[in-house]
Amino acid sequence: MIKVGIIGSTGYAGAELVRLLLQHPKAEIVWYGSRTYADQKYADVYRNMFELVDETCMNENMDELADRADVIFTATPQGLCASLVNDRILEQTKVIDLSADFRLKRVDVYEKWYQRTHEAPGYLPEAVYGLCEINRKDIAGARIVANPGCYTTTSILTLYPLVAEGLIDRNTIIIDAKSGTSGAGRGAKLPNLFCEVNESIKPYGVATHRHTPEIEEQLSYAAGLDYQTGESLLINFTPHLVPMNRGILATCYASLREGVAAADVQGAYEKYYKEEYFIRLLGKGSFPETRWVEGSNFVDIGFTVDERTGRVIAVGALDNLVKGAAGQAVQNMNIVFGLPENMGLQMVPLFP
Amino acid sequence: MIKVGIIGSTGYAGAELVRLLLQHPKAEIVWYGSRTYADQKYADVYRNMFELVDETCMNENMDELADRADVIFTATPQGLCASLVNDRILEQTKVIDLSADFRLKRVDVYEKWYQRTHEAPGYLPEAVYGLCEINRKDIAGARIVANPGCYTTTSILTLYPLVAEGLIDRNTIIIDAKSGTSGAGRGAKLPNLFCEVNESIKPYGVATHRHTPEIEEQLSYAAGLDYQTGESLLINFTPHLVPMNRGILATCYASLREGVAAADVQGAYEKYYKEEYFIRLLGKGSFPETRWVEGSNFVDIGFTVDERTGRVIAVGALDNLVKGAAGQAVQNMNIVFGLPENMGLQMVPLFP
Amino acid sequence: MIKVGIIGSTGYAGAELVRLLLQHPKAEIVWYGSRTYADQKYADVYRNMFELVDETCMNENMDELADRADVIFTATPQGLCASLVNDRILEQTKVIDLSADFRLKRVDVYEKWYQRTHEAPGYLPEAVYGLCEINRKDIAGARIVANPGCYTTTSILTLYPLVAEGLIDRNTIIIDAKSGTSGAGRGAKLPNLFCEVNESIKPYGVATHRHTPEIEEQLSYAAGLDYQTGESLLINFTPHLVPMNRGILATCYASLREGVAAADVQGAYEKYYKEEYFIRLLGKGSFPETRWVEGSNFVDIGFTVDERTGRVIAVGALDNLVKGAAGQAVQNMNIVFGLPENMGLQMVPLFP
Amino acid sequence: MIKVGIIGSTGYAGAELVRLLLQHPKAEIVWYGSRTYADQKYADVYRNMFELVDETCMNENMDELADRADVIFTATPQGLCASLVNDRILEQTKVIDLSADFRLKRVDVYEKWYQRTHEAPGYLPEAVYGLCEINRKDIAGARIVANPGCYTTTSILTLYPLVAEGLIDRNTIIIDAKSGTSGAGRGAKLPNLFCEVNESIKPYGVATHRHTPEIEEQLSYAAGLDYQTGESLLINFTPHLVPMNRGILATCYASLREGVAAADVQGAYEKYYKEEYFIRLLGKGSFPETRWVEGSNFVDIGFTVDERTGRVIAVGALDNLVKGAAGQAVQNMNIVFGLPENMGLQMVPLFP
Repeated sequence: MIKVGIIGSTGYAGAELVRLLLQHPKAEIVWYGSRTYADQKYADVYRNMFELVDETCMNENMDELADRADVIFTATPQGLCASLVNDRILEQTKVIDLSADFRLKRVDVYEKWYQRTHEAPGYLPEAVYGLCEINRKDIAGARIVANPGCYTTTSILTLYPLVAEGLIDRNTIIIDAKSGTSGAGRGAKLPNLFCEVNESIKPYGVATHRHTPEIEEQLSYAAGLDYQTGESLLINFTPHLVPMNRGILATCYASLREGVAAADVQGAYEKYYKEEYFIRLLGKGSFPETRWVEGSNFVDIGFTVDERTGRVIAVGALDNLVKGAAGQAVQNMNIVFGLPENMGLQMVPLFP
Repeated sequence: MIKVGIIGSTGYAGAELVRLLLQHPKAEIVWYGSRTYADQKYADVYRNMFELVDETCMNENMDELADRADVIFTATPQGLCASLVNDRILEQTKVIDLSADFRLKRVDVYEKWYQRTHEAPGYLPEAVYGLCEINRKDIAGARIVANPGCYTTTSILTLYPLVAEGLIDRNTIIIDAKSGTSGAGRGAKLPNLFCEVNESIKPYGVATHRHTPEIEEQLSYAAGLDYQTGESLLINFTPHLVPMNRGILATCYASLREGVAAADVQGAYEKYYKEEYFIRLLGKGSFPETRWVEGSNFVDIGFTVDERTGRVIAVGALDNLVKGAAGQAVQNMNIVFGLPENMGLQMVPLFP
Repeated sequence: MIKVGIIGSTGYAGAELVRLLLQHPKAEIVWYGSRTYADQKYADVYRNMFELVDETCMNENMDELADRADVIFTATPQGLCASLVNDRILEQTKVIDLSADFRLKRVDVYEKWYQRTHEAPGYLPEAVYGLCEINRKDIAGARIVANPGCYTTTSILTLYPLVAEGLIDRNTIIIDAKSGTSGAGRGAKLPNLFCEVNESIKPYGVATHRHTPEIEEQLSYAAGLDYQTGESLLINFTPHLVPMNRGILATCYASLREGVAAADVQGAYEKYYKEEYFIRLLGKGSFPETRWVEGSNFVDIGFTVDERTGRVIAVGALDNLVKGAAGQAVQNMNIVFGLPENMGLQMVPLFP
Repeated sequence: MIKVGIIGSTGYAGAELVRLLLQHPKAEIVWYGSRTYADQKYADVYRNMFELVDETCMNENMDELADRADVIFTATPQGLCASLVNDRILEQTKVIDLSADFRLKRVDVYEKWYQRTHEAPGYLPEAVYGLCEINRKDIAGARIVANPGCYTTTSILTLYPLVAEGLIDRNTIIIDAKSGTSGAGRGAKLPNLFCEVNESIKPYGVATHRHTPEIEEQLSYAAGLDYQTGESLLINFTPHLVPMNRGILATCYASLREGVAAADVQGAYEKYYKEEYFIRLLGKGSFPETRWVEGSNFVDIGFTVDERTGRVIAVGALDNLVKGAAGQAVQNMNIVFGLPENMGLQMVPLFP
């Protein structure tokens, strides 16, 4: 059994890790980390775990944790993971970081968008961006996996084949994304109160959201750009808050290059994803809805081509807490430990 | 592998059966029945099943189905199951009926509350009421299992120990129940439209809901009454529609008998349910919430005693599509086929 | 124009006062009080008021406020209003208190249920319980109006005629109430986050909720009991949180006295409410739904009689922020200032 | 008093007309038209109108209606209004059509996008597109007002100044819109059931939605194009269904022309809308949310400029049933009859 420690197990992403790992045949949670709820029973924080989890939440103790765990998931605010890793720890255990600390290769980009100093830039080169379907070879040997953001997983997977195959004009990409409210975390903040979210939709972080450079970096790699030296495609990314618990939908627009037809788009998707268990290609004219992936690790992708405007509209959907966070983290764990990639992740989507 | 046929696989309860059975290690669905969607791909009706279910919906053919299936689940409107069963079929296969056809032992009570003639009264004596925690011994040998209703499962399990132990005045029982909207089915009816249900709560079937006699019958057995000859306790049962997909909460009131204390109530619950995997006793002063059981087969029960009024308030919660329908049906299947009762049903509740 | 000051104008009830008073032909808001948002523009706190309210929030200054306002609404936490009133202020202005400070006539009951010392018990005798349809004569001459709670308004109005006419056994009353989430206020608390409330229903304050004694006191008056000397009927009251913004539904149960028929119940309702603008009697067999009163000051009441159990089930519904708080407060203002009672309150319910 | 007839008064838009007109000081509803509910009491169809509307629904009788009404609102499916108008009727009464029949000036465009033959093309030239803030002069003298669609009102008002002032490259417009479910109407269709809509977001009509040509036509006029002869800008328009009752949000993207700065965008909005009562300009960096306009006739507009990509992102929000349907229809009525444009429409937005 793989011994798993979770730092930040009482946030929504952390709790989803618990849910998934409890049902994983080869993993065992040995550490339920939580600053806020240290010394409280985990099942008192999440009553769905009553009689399923008997453990008590523990405050941080990275050294002890590294001794006890084969892998540590950090589902914590930005900066914490970077402040904790060091050589000794990485010699003892693997780190799968659900925060943004190791997602961006360029420190300057990180510090500009996150407005904070990176505390462990030395580990950026070895950290692997854990977008499984794209980077699984590198993930297999990684000590630090930077688990992608929820919006970014949806957006990148939806656009990757189109960019990689050169089907679209790469500076015309616009991503209009919509997320359920669990993406905002479990902090007791006024904007996330039921009455503030219910019966409303709003954009936020317009032109400034931190997932923007993450998408740009990965799609730049797809485009063959030399990102480290400053080459990059530029996108517009606009997230919206939707009155639902789970789910992300990314509606992506781009101008097709001269002569590219719908069949080329379909072909590109099949080339990259046909064999992927977690990516379901709906095909031309069929579009995803978040309800069809809820509770599962699937990404559904559909598209159409608007002949009038010469644009492709490609839409991706996933469950932000599963494929957008905990599910992909477990998928990364499976890769790192040489297990079948979908082990413990074959949940059938829950509907309604 | 147990070969399973589902008649009515495209209603919400039927679809939940599909979800659960796909994840069951010893069952295999061989028949996706649906009148409405006959000859359509199942995954076109439920897009969450895309790439998971390849089969096409089939119209009724009970004879062929009986040949192919070890067990048939009927998740259909009232009357259909009663019209289909006969000796030949019951010699070949088991029937687990999710409708009300075989739930009430007294034909007169059925015909009064359901306002229809019972088409197979001859099978009522052998049909077993499939409330697993109470009747598992009888279920084990049954050919016809009458799977209980969602409201009734919640209500009966919450009140059973109190009635059976004689702790309450049995004619003071009032059950005020609240249900998510999936309980209303997938029919395209105006009252179930999003805009009609959202931002509202309403009572319905007040003093006339068909689950009333089902609860009365089972609690009468618990009270040791001779129900067949006309003895029965009488309750008030009021269901309410809540703007959420899943979940039932039953708030139950009853006057305690002279001298009965909270400890007695606690003791009764422990006596009956302490060893039950699917019943989680929250204890005095702690109350269930439907979010903590969503997606799972658990029933959570809590209570308090109001010393001022001499009443016990006991509250039960479950997922109406799982323990209230498909989950309990699978639990019944497990019992009938001698499998561990929680096989394929150990889903951790999904939250949020 | 009546000059109005609002203390606590940035809570949900306070904001609803603003909405209603802006549309009131004879009232003018002269003071937008708020501790939390002092010196911020009101329209920055509530963006629906953008271009409609130009004023800035002001911290408490009761003396100045008393000079400027003809009436002060206190939509504040328990204890604040009691700590502010004094003779000088009451000589200058009227006080309509939306908190519980002056709702209960007995200090011992207040202090037991609210677990705090009452700071102005001397004003309890003159304070008038502002349930308009019952107490309008006394309200007309009051200096302090204790605006009723949301649950209590629903519950008392639904049961009052039955108790006053002696139709029910007064110790059999059980009120199972359901509320939208705005009743929980705008405080940034974890249990009120969208993801915690959405897709769930839960009971709370079971057998301990503070609205219990308020209902008991008023219904005791209806029953002709000498409440001050300790006579009181006793009820069970169980509130539940529903995933919707607005609305309260109270499902009330009681045993009918021997010989009482549905016609008597209907007659009692008509006797008390037939001429009431804000009470809509749906009649026997028709039940209210919160969606039909949203945004309005109406209370809808329906009932049935269950001949089998001898109980009446009466159900009331209202908008907790309007008739359950701000609307009733404005109605009280209208009475105090001799205006038509429904002035500024004839909003047609908003649906959907 | 203006005598008003409503054909289709029992759909959501029709019911909203009723709500608004009941509160309008100069209008009186004389005809509650409804095919589906003919001869039923209106208040039995919409229980919020209990005791407020005493009338019975009436089947179509255009001639009688024209005799009795000064203005007829048609809130009906496509084609009905076109089939009813004729010279005699237009000599007697005004028609404000909430369907699409007279919105598009070009019959070929109508017939292509709506896939039906236009039954009254002869009236297209005189029909005025009732986007009040843009066309009020022409509306004043119209006999037929084509009330704009909900998506289109939001989209056009948000983009109009930018196109009219030539600030953007007009072939780069992408509109990603999100709507509450009341926009789908009150028909009993499976996709609009609560459990199908709740907890999900989906795109629909991608690249094919009928509001596309309506937006293109009006923005072409703004751009000074000769639309009748075939000149037109082309846009992408993608609507999404959001689990909420009311509200539309349109997130609009376009490339700024060389040298255009945020101040120019701000200036354009002020030039066109500064004096508009119903348009609230939030300014740069501030974005609308549908909750802030619910129940009102306001349109909130905000924007930002992304220097990195050279695009403006402008966002508009309104209540689809008010400014997106019934409210704008009443605003048109006010214009046609020479009343103050905001008469009966000064509702303060309802929140929460």
